[in-house]
Amino acid sequence: MSTPMQFLSDNAASVHPKLWDAMRAVDAPDAPYDGDAVSARLDAAFGEMFGRECAVLWVATGTAANCLALASMVQPHGGVVCHREAHIEMDEGGAPGFYLHGAKLLLAEGESAKLTPDNIRAVIDPIRDDVHQVQPHAISITQASEYGCVYQPQEIAAIAALAKERGLGLHMDGARFANACAFLGGCAADAAGAVDALSFGCVKNGGMSAEAIVFFDTGMAEAARYRRKRAGHLQSKGRYLAAQLLAMVEDDLWLSNARAANNAAQEIASAAGERLMHPVQANEIFLRCTSEERDVLRSAGFEFYDWGIDAARLVTAWNTPQDHALALSKAIAAL
Amino acid sequence: MSTPMQFLSDNAASVHPKLWDAMRAVDAPDAPYDGDAVSARLDAAFGEMFGRECAVLWVATGTAANCLALASMVQPHGGVVCHREAHIEMDEGGAPGFYLHGAKLLLAEGESAKLTPDNIRAVIDPIRDDVHQVQPHAISITQASEYGCVYQPQEIAAIAALAKERGLGLHMDGARFANACAFLGGCAADAAGAVDALSFGCVKNGGMSAEAIVFFDTGMAEAARYRRKRAGHLQSKGRYLAAQLLAMVEDDLWLSNARAANNAAQEIASAAGERLMHPVQANEIFLRCTSEERDVLRSAGFEFYDWGIDAARLVTAWNTPQDHALALSKAIAAL
Amino acid sequence: MSTPMQFLSDNAASVHPKLWDAMRAVDAPDAPYDGDAVSARLDAAFGEMFGRECAVLWVATGTAANCLALASMVQPHGGVVCHREAHIEMDEGGAPGFYLHGAKLLLAEGESAKLTPDNIRAVIDPIRDDVHQVQPHAISITQASEYGCVYQPQEIAAIAALAKERGLGLHMDGARFANACAFLGGCAADAAGAVDALSFGCVKNGGMSAEAIVFFDTGMAEAARYRRKRAGHLQSKGRYLAAQLLAMVEDDLWLSNARAANNAAQEIASAAGERLMHPVQANEIFLRCTSEERDVLRSAGFEFYDWGIDAARLVTAWNTPQDHALALSKAIAAL
Amino acid sequence: MSTPMQFLSDNAASVHPKLWDAMRAVDAPDAPYDGDAVSARLDAAFGEMFGRECAVLWVATGTAANCLALASMVQPHGGVVCHREAHIEMDEGGAPGFYLHGAKLLLAEGESAKLTPDNIRAVIDPIRDDVHQVQPHAISITQASEYGCVYQPQEIAAIAALAKERGLGLHMDGARFANACAFLGGCAADAAGAVDALSFGCVKNGGMSAEAIVFFDTGMAEAARYRRKRAGHLQSKGRYLAAQLLAMVEDDLWLSNARAANNAAQEIASAAGERLMHPVQANEIFLRCTSEERDVLRSAGFEFYDWGIDAARLVTAWNTPQDHALALSKAIAAL
Repeated sequence: MSTPMQFLSDNAASVHPKLWDAMRAVDAPDAPYDGDAVSARLDAAFGEMFGRECAVLWVATGTAANCLALASMVQPHGGVVCHREAHIEMDEGGAPGFYLHGAKLLLAEGESAKLTPDNIRAVIDPIRDDVHQVQPHAISITQASEYGCVYQPQEIAAIAALAKERGLGLHMDGARFANACAFLGGCAADAAGAVDALSFGCVKNGGMSAEAIVFFDTGMAEAARYRRKRAGHLQSKGRYLAAQLLAMVEDDLWLSNARAANNAAQEIASAAGERLMHPVQANEIFLRCTSEERDVLRSAGFEFYDWGIDAARLVTAWNTPQDHALALSKAIAAL
Repeated sequence: MSTPMQFLSDNAASVHPKLWDAMRAVDAPDAPYDGDAVSARLDAAFGEMFGRECAVLWVATGTAANCLALASMVQPHGGVVCHREAHIEMDEGGAPGFYLHGAKLLLAEGESAKLTPDNIRAVIDPIRDDVHQVQPHAISITQASEYGCVYQPQEIAAIAALAKERGLGLHMDGARFANACAFLGGCAADAAGAVDALSFGCVKNGGMSAEAIVFFDTGMAEAARYRRKRAGHLQSKGRYLAAQLLAMVEDDLWLSNARAANNAAQEIASAAGERLMHPVQANEIFLRCTSEERDVLRSAGFEFYDWGIDAARLVTAWNTPQDHALALSKAIAAL
Repeated sequence: MSTPMQFLSDNAASVHPKLWDAMRAVDAPDAPYDGDAVSARLDAAFGEMFGRECAVLWVATGTAANCLALASMVQPHGGVVCHREAHIEMDEGGAPGFYLHGAKLLLAEGESAKLTPDNIRAVIDPIRDDVHQVQPHAISITQASEYGCVYQPQEIAAIAALAKERGLGLHMDGARFANACAFLGGCAADAAGAVDALSFGCVKNGGMSAEAIVFFDTGMAEAARYRRKRAGHLQSKGRYLAAQLLAMVEDDLWLSNARAANNAAQEIASAAGERLMHPVQANEIFLRCTSEERDVLRSAGFEFYDWGIDAARLVTAWNTPQDHALALSKAIAAL
Repeated sequence: MSTPMQFLSDNAASVHPKLWDAMRAVDAPDAPYDGDAVSARLDAAFGEMFGRECAVLWVATGTAANCLALASMVQPHGGVVCHREAHIEMDEGGAPGFYLHGAKLLLAEGESAKLTPDNIRAVIDPIRDDVHQVQPHAISITQASEYGCVYQPQEIAAIAALAKERGLGLHMDGARFANACAFLGGCAADAAGAVDALSFGCVKNGGMSAEAIVFFDTGMAEAARYRRKRAGHLQSKGRYLAAQLLAMVEDDLWLSNARAANNAAQEIASAAGERLMHPVQANEIFLRCTSEERDVLRSAGFEFYDWGIDAARLVTAWNTPQDHALALSKAIAAL
């Protein structure tokens, strides 16, 4: 019987060989925690990539990255504007409530899980400026969004302008930042815009256990280092995490991995036509299809998640075989 | 110039080859988080090792393990009795305050950083049973202690009896549990005794990024799984952590690694005589020596930490070369 | 110029003379905190009123009462189902996030700010039973609701049955419980139903600074006493709070005060016809009226809050003068 | 049988008649929360008293005052240096852990429960400046101390200089600030010195239910207002609290009440000689006496608390009858 063709998620894919090599290369003892030689190189490496100064902290998960970044911007009595379907609201088990000591998520609408200044204003303008209501302290956007859609630089700029006008921090959840950046042409600075902090994803893009919090407002990093330790996220052999991140960024591996995943998604999307629920811009396809159609696809060896009653979610990864993507494309066309 | 001989800590040592192999062996995609085949085997593997039912959760750090275990026993308005020099008090950046939502550490005395029932009673008996004072909810002991000393089974039993009598949870910080267990003869059940939860260390014993929380009170595990996610410690590629733990326990690698480290420590201790500040029972040596004597040792190529003004801390690891230990032993004898 | 006629809120009204008397009557020193003779009588007094055993704690505010009650039912990693416009969501400055250590409010729809089993199920049924999503631990309903509407006993019973079926705690925010109870005929047990804990309002009903948390699940009270102290809500001269509560309940003053307020509201509502946005069942009237119409009313000496663009909120109190209510009734009729 | 003569505590004494009058005087409805006319006068009244600008918030308890003040200075990952026997450590049920989201109390020694710069340095100097150890963010001192001893202005100045040098906030718990100030001659500015925030006690000095948080660093007040609401301490009829505070300060009632209590304490102390464990400077006497001697005093009608095995604590209040103090003085002399 043939191997199943996996489109469940990118979050359990194999680790890229270059990252294995990079981890093995730092196996000799070095200073513990983030005192090692590789951790020391992260600020410069990311700074070069983004074309501006930044302070970089590794952590093991995107949830930790998001929450530590937000904790740098939001007081416990404040709130974070995010999309109603944002990962921090829907899928992090209440981690923002824990890390932000009870601060509140203020939920906004928005097509394809993307926010706009209008949608943000619709949430924050009705908040009375008094102590009875939780005031917004920050905005969090997701690049690419939970539906695989990408913010254009001018869209981020408009949100950043609003954030600045209202005195709010701006955070970007970039669990799939690489895929978004690849879609936009590969310029990291364009894809991040003027955010204060970015959760830079690596695990979904061929990493094993490392994500980066990139503070462009570098003053936020100091307290974040204390908070990381306090959250049990300062690993003593941090060099293995740093090595993963450095291997990702040093030869643009992050972009080539993302391009591979995006290309596979495009291959599949090209056959989907009217079935697409959202534009396919990164590596996720949300496909209208009946329960019977899903059965057909699964019988043909494709694995994926249902998305509600009448849809499927298909996710490609850095290592999705071209023939699997092609086969799925054909199978969808044949439905 | 010769390579330095490293006795700084066991917390940055290389990863054991068998763990690399185990991680590579699970590189093929599997279910994310802790739904994979390896994570599924942990309860049984640890259950066999301890001779009783248990529920096992992997996390990346000892701090996370300790705090998640304690959060299962302690309400936010309660307290944890621990030694004044316990890791949770001295070296976790206030993580217990974070994870336990402000619960308090109640500090006890005790020789070589070990607690006794008397020392625990000296802390909890004066606490008035009223709402103005924080009531104890749990006790946390460290096996081996911060000074490398080991609780004998009957010592644990006496503390467990007190915990039971007073209705307190009992947690064991086992960052160096393997070293303690090796000293006691290798029976895991003896070394853990009747604790409710154990933080089973792996990183200091040849691991990369995995520690186990072993709940013997298995009912505690359910909430702990939610709390782990909420703390950002549920890694999506958890199989790499599970693989490390399984490789450690399946062929008693944890014990052979610990024995190697303990043997190296004994080699060094054998030369130290009156200089020893604490019995050497695990893999740490606390050595009385002047600043000048430390200079002599460092000139000879040995690396280690000062311990206050008149002492040094020397730590061996699973891979401390025998000739390094021997050389250090001789150098100490020659002081 | 004539005194304004005040319909802004019941939350700043004068204190009832009997409460002044009751406070003066306990001015002689007694045991501090809740060790005094009056505090000791609360359990019995409320127990008699509700016809079942209960444990009663005084606190200074409804926010503290609600949050301490909920903290007895909800773990930090859990959630509370409440109406989208509930006071705990809209008007408590994020207090639930603070008291519940980051637990989440899960927002449900419902006419006139009342929940139904269907509306609750619509929120909790889609929650996946996994650690990535915050699980419900409790339900909170408001009697009377934020729109002055009252749950009938059978409506509470249906919600209580759902709570029991799903293993959820059930809390009632009774800031205006007296008004609801008066509407229902005056039986406290009917108005509370099978909730586990009730925030029994006194301040809006002629009190100065005391609300009661009534735990019908008396086992919840012990931890709540610790939490009350920990929140700085255990006043040393608690006898003045206890005296207020006791004076309220001992001669059914709470009901006569509420009836007076309800009657004034009915007087006003009788003239409002189609303008009423919600049935008037307690002491709040939500009135459709234009900005110009509001100006007319204000010119005539009536004070009240705008409610959005096209409405006004009018609140009566225990001491609303009959002639004021009558005057307002006529003024509305004349619009 | 004669009335007992009460020296248990000042925390349950009767309310001063002027405060009753002041509360009655604000019984007419006014704006809710702290929008009323009396609350609006507090900043100016306290500003005049202290001779410098300040922002004043009322709360119901000293615990709330202390914790809200500290929350303005201390991040959740930081710590507060206080005396080992400070109220915030010993008697607030862990409230600092709750309000500061798990920040730590760093315990210092000091005679008569007073801190000195040396004692503070002994705590903070050994703290390594790294993320593994909780860093101090503030210092909290108690005026008068838990043993009724008073900081001289130059002693506060020395601590304030250290706080400034190390970038730490400085808080003063003034539950008995009036007594300390009376001892020092009645100048509020002298008794407070250069602290950033003061918990100004009123309840123990003839108040019913109001304490003031006085922010001399007025920038701290804004977040504190949100935190007060979030803690359930924003009472809707706040005017009754404001009235108590204003009545206290406007005619120096606070000082005359404190002088009365202090005088009574001096009367008693004058007879105690070598029995005094601490200098009597405010309104507390700690008296060495055997169990048998305590029985003698109690048989004579005096009520007070034991203080450990061989001592008694005697507290006077604003309304301690002169003849009671005299009688106690004679009884002690006769022991």
